[in-house]
Amino acid sequence: MTGASTTDRGLPNATVARLPLYLRALTQLRATGSATCSSDQLAEATGVSSANVRKDLSHLGSHGTRGVGYDVAHLQAEIAQAIGQTQEWNVVLVGAGHLGKALAAYPGFASRGSRIVAVVDADPKRLGEQVVDGLVIESADDLDEIVRDRAVSIAILATPTHAAQDVADRLVAAGVTSILNFAPVALRVPDGVDVRQVDVAAELQILAYHEQRKSSPREEAVSG
Amino acid sequence: MTGASTTDRGLPNATVARLPLYLRALTQLRATGSATCSSDQLAEATGVSSANVRKDLSHLGSHGTRGVGYDVAHLQAEIAQAIGQTQEWNVVLVGAGHLGKALAAYPGFASRGSRIVAVVDADPKRLGEQVVDGLVIESADDLDEIVRDRAVSIAILATPTHAAQDVADRLVAAGVTSILNFAPVALRVPDGVDVRQVDVAAELQILAYHEQRKSSPREEAVSG
Repeated sequence: MTGASTTDRGLPNATVARLPLYLRALTQLRATGSATCSSDQLAEATGVSSANVRKDLSHLGSHGTRGVGYDVAHLQAEIAQAIGQTQEWNVVLVGAGHLGKALAAYPGFASRGSRIVAVVDADPKRLGEQVVDGLVIESADDLDEIVRDRAVSIAILATPTHAAQDVADRLVAAGVTSILNFAPVALRVPDGVDVRQVDVAAELQILAYHEQRKSSPREEAVSG
Repeated sequence: MTGASTTDRGLPNATVARLPLYLRALTQLRATGSATCSSDQLAEATGVSSANVRKDLSHLGSHGTRGVGYDVAHLQAEIAQAIGQTQEWNVVLVGAGHLGKALAAYPGFASRGSRIVAVVDADPKRLGEQVVDGLVIESADDLDEIVRDRAVSIAILATPTHAAQDVADRLVAAGVTSILNFAPVALRVPDGVDVRQVDVAAELQILAYHEQRKSSPREEAVSG
């Protein structure tokens, strides 16, 4: 994933990456009527160590109460505010192939403060095709207008690899300042534009690396 | 992403995560006829800082030659071996919805040592449906048999959220030791089974967090 390891002010990216997990867990706890919870409960629910849970929450200024734990509703509100969920973010999805359609239908965007307001694709034959309820494919030619008129600041890039950089350039020129990139290429963007990359093939290779080590337990450790 | 920050032997996960990026860049360099390359070239091509490039490669025992740089073919072979790409890995894809179909068609798996050998889905109406060339949907009931007969060690989990843990349990029971999980839930697996999680909604929330900070530059820094 691209990006510096810490933000120059505010929360470390590692903490920011985990906050949505706590938020999901807290939402579920509220739904089951829990008023308080412990760091162990959040750890269990999210797969994060208790130590990291407490560290992350202390970054928000939340330290829990000895013997009681954390107030679920209060913590949920704090986290939601910290990660910008108090504001709705309009998102444009570029690329309506299988991946784009999967992302358009992805559960949970709407409940977490982001909303896809447009889906564009370069294929003229697909104009008007419905992607999900309320969203039809619009022309990539209209991208600039869409970004401006619908106050889009975040784009999801699910285009073919060869098109990714060009599309990124157009998005940035139109005013988008955050891109979630699924194409396996490092995008070049100006300062002030954030890119997070999901590289599925790299994820698989990391797993393959660990698989290899499982079958070669006596492999000499690589000196570093 | 789940997992400890370092492996107890061998390469740090952060390095492992970046090696596929170098591999891709080196493949492209070879294709254009370059015999050597600098850390700056790899940095430019991958979006990784030159310092991290050099640090990562030194973990492999590669230090480059002053004034010359790295030997492209040699480095490519070293990285391929380090990340287990000298062995083909058989992968089962569980879940053939939009996301599953996008993953089945994802460019680059085959060229990087992983090959999807089966696609299963729980929907009986979809048995036999072609996903991509050579792959048709098979029954989730046959999962155990598929994993054993086709020597599968890695699974990609692209099921609905509610089904993810059950499917993970079955995969592990059948002998899978690595799971790439796209469902937004922390999977519980025994020691010895690796899970890497891609949480798309969390990625979007991280971007939203940074977007919020852009519009509130005078926001008081959160004390930690």
